[in-house]
Amino acid sequence: MKKNGDEIYAHVEELLRMICFKIRIQGRIALKDYSITPAQFDLMQRTYFDGPQTMTKLSQMLGIAKSTTTGLVMRLERDGFLRRRQGDEDKRVAMVEITELGSEVIKFVIKRRVDYIKEIMDKFPLDTSDKIYHSLIELSSVIEEK
Amino acid sequence: MKKNGDEIYAHVEELLRMICFKIRIQGRIALKDYSITPAQFDLMQRTYFDGPQTMTKLSQMLGIAKSTTTGLVMRLERDGFLRRRQGDEDKRVAMVEITELGSEVIKFVIKRRVDYIKEIMDKFPLDTSDKIYHSLIELSSVIEEK
Repeated sequence: MKKNGDEIYAHVEELLRMICFKIRIQGRIALKDYSITPAQFDLMQRTYFDGPQTMTKLSQMLGIAKSTTTGLVMRLERDGFLRRRQGDEDKRVAMVEITELGSEVIKFVIKRRVDYIKEIMDKFPLDTSDKIYHSLIELSSVIEEK
Repeated sequence: MKKNGDEIYAHVEELLRMICFKIRIQGRIALKDYSITPAQFDLMQRTYFDGPQTMTKLSQMLGIAKSTTTGLVMRLERDGFLRRRQGDEDKRVAMVEITELGSEVIKFVIKRRVDYIKEIMDKFPLDTSDKIYHSLIELSSVIEEK
């Protein structure tokens, strides 16, 4: 690496910020017809990928205040994307889970993001897209632990 | 690549989704003390990195409805993170620009994300982090054009 260490970290942050932003926009465009905000969608994604969650766990996962989580869940429940049910272990603690409608929205958005990524990846020669793919696997393996 | 094409695209989307989510959470934790929502922060970032923007341009950049943009800008202006001023070219069209306070918040959040990335990248041997770094440069060069 020619840049010094600190410059590289700042550059990696910048590259990832740009990449993530562009992909996120694809998802948002897909969401426009549903009048779901980005914050609501993030919360829906957690219940879709990680299963039913308590409000407290959702707040932790999303790095947002408990009161914000409550507001997001209430609106998503009202619109039929999430439901709250009694907890299995502790009946006093409500679990938030995704509905069939909510799952369909998630799949629709992810489909659009996958199509976008296909369009991007197809622009590279095979050895380059292979290198990018394996780099992302390595990067995510360390990030997943943190 | 051993997986077939379509599986790879879906996997790349999954990897990037996870990587982007984890980095975003770092930013959100840094934002907690400012009571700025993720949607507000995205908008602030655009005025910070791309300069003063019209409401219409911000809506396009963020893939959100114009009415949503207006609401976000009003709250950020009230809290001193953004200001609206008369346009240079067309005085009838207001430009949204970031304030000194807003810029400080952006720098604070990015600092936290860079620190997180440093922590991650330092876990790899030099040749691996180098490979990841260059893969991200290649990936972003194509995404930037789209």
